[in-house]
Amino acid sequence: MKVINLKSEMKAVSDRLKKDGKSIGLVPTMGYLHDGHISLIKQSKRSCDVTVLSIFVNPAQFGPNEDFNKYPRDFEADSKIAAKERVDFIFAPDETEMYHENHLTYVNVDKLDRIMCGKSRPIHFKGVCTVVLKLFNIVNPDKAFFGKKDFQQLAIIKKMVKDLDVLVEIIDCDTVREPDGLALSSRNKYLSTEERKNAAILYKSILFAENEIKTGQTQISAIRRKCMEMLSLNKFIKKIDYFDIRNPENLKEIKKIDSGTEKLLIASAVYIGTTRLIDNKVVLL
Amino acid sequence: MKVINLKSEMKAVSDRLKKDGKSIGLVPTMGYLHDGHISLIKQSKRSCDVTVLSIFVNPAQFGPNEDFNKYPRDFEADSKIAAKERVDFIFAPDETEMYHENHLTYVNVDKLDRIMCGKSRPIHFKGVCTVVLKLFNIVNPDKAFFGKKDFQQLAIIKKMVKDLDVLVEIIDCDTVREPDGLALSSRNKYLSTEERKNAAILYKSILFAENEIKTGQTQISAIRRKCMEMLSLNKFIKKIDYFDIRNPENLKEIKKIDSGTEKLLIASAVYIGTTRLIDNKVVLL
Repeated sequence: MKVINLKSEMKAVSDRLKKDGKSIGLVPTMGYLHDGHISLIKQSKRSCDVTVLSIFVNPAQFGPNEDFNKYPRDFEADSKIAAKERVDFIFAPDETEMYHENHLTYVNVDKLDRIMCGKSRPIHFKGVCTVVLKLFNIVNPDKAFFGKKDFQQLAIIKKMVKDLDVLVEIIDCDTVREPDGLALSSRNKYLSTEERKNAAILYKSILFAENEIKTGQTQISAIRRKCMEMLSLNKFIKKIDYFDIRNPENLKEIKKIDSGTEKLLIASAVYIGTTRLIDNKVVLL
Repeated sequence: MKVINLKSEMKAVSDRLKKDGKSIGLVPTMGYLHDGHISLIKQSKRSCDVTVLSIFVNPAQFGPNEDFNKYPRDFEADSKIAAKERVDFIFAPDETEMYHENHLTYVNVDKLDRIMCGKSRPIHFKGVCTVVLKLFNIVNPDKAFFGKKDFQQLAIIKKMVKDLDVLVEIIDCDTVREPDGLALSSRNKYLSTEERKNAAILYKSILFAENEIKTGQTQISAIRRKCMEMLSLNKFIKKIDYFDIRNPENLKEIKKIDSGTEKLLIASAVYIGTTRLIDNKVVLL
């Protein structure tokens, strides 16, 4: 396994690999790897000749009052995990390497960036799209692997790739969960013991909504009200950012379930203490 | 020469060319080819194995009250010129092929898109960047050729390519002029005989500014005032959109010429009747 810090070196390596006819899988991460990331690496290893793991905590996707500075970082532990998983290259540029001084260019997916997580994080997806497109241009992967836990991110990246004719196949990978249902996230580290015990409530509320839908409830507003109530009753939930039921294809809100409804996205973001957690599930009817 | 209308076919062709080790030159145009375009084609032919000429009048770069509908189009004449110049492929998608329904993704170069032409054409450069990046992704060129007549466009595309780590070399090509100095432009077709005769005043005012600078005038405001007056006195000039003197590297305004000033961009946009024309010159000191 080789660690690459420079864009120019990464470009040269991927250029050579492409000339040799190798397929490249990219697993873009912000590091602090957990089993969710490992499942992405495994999927890349299975379907591509060479796997590049990028580790970059992208400042452009954090708002001014968000957790960019305290976001957990542990390159040594990440390297060990990557080596164990037989990652071929870690691409880990620093901030000044990734964004030179006076960076002015941003990629944006209109409308989809204003709903759900975008409501409270208005610059987030612009930052995500910009860094992902940069990584695609630098690494030139055939496939890139993203977790379904960040469902809106995945939908926005797929839309960007389609709209801009980017030649990268986006592979969505299942969310990996703790035994109690909590979705793995590097941010789970922020939770106190008590908060961690209570954090499973987020996924439980989503499963509750799924059960309501599957047992015939068609009024979205009624389902949302019950789930919001369930979440509010837990004293560790300091704020419900959103609890939405949407069309997973275009992220449009669903008002009422009818015979034409084939699938639904249930997605929520809540604050457990000061930690913002997200989760979702796609329900097939 | 082959005409390609579908993105998928163009991608397949460029993929095959790249696999065969051929270098690809892209000349992106909106058609209605003139000697300026031909000079771009010739430069591509000289430095690349294969030349792709794209012809696409890009709706995303026209404002609601601009000339998208009346923009001149003549595919037959363009094809003849392209064949004569031994273009290898014309890529000419139609609007629905280029932008599918519900296109939401745009690329923007902040700040640079708000000055000069961007002041009166606020969505113009967003549309240009988006279509150019799409063309780059579809055609996958080694080099792309742009005219210096659209100096701000060139500067913005170079910035986008740098900021997003796009692997395309941007080649800027000299403006081609009529004997009286008027820069070639497809929009010159809009001019009446009398307007055409008077249109050379735009370049003359730029040469006048150059002469002022070269003969020791250091006050930009004085130079601008004289040039604006010169333009205003011509009754065919209906409006001066801007007459700017800027740093050609970063497009920042220059207030005063001093010993540190190495080069200047003189750029202007005016309306001759209802036709908006632009021109510029870079002056080395």
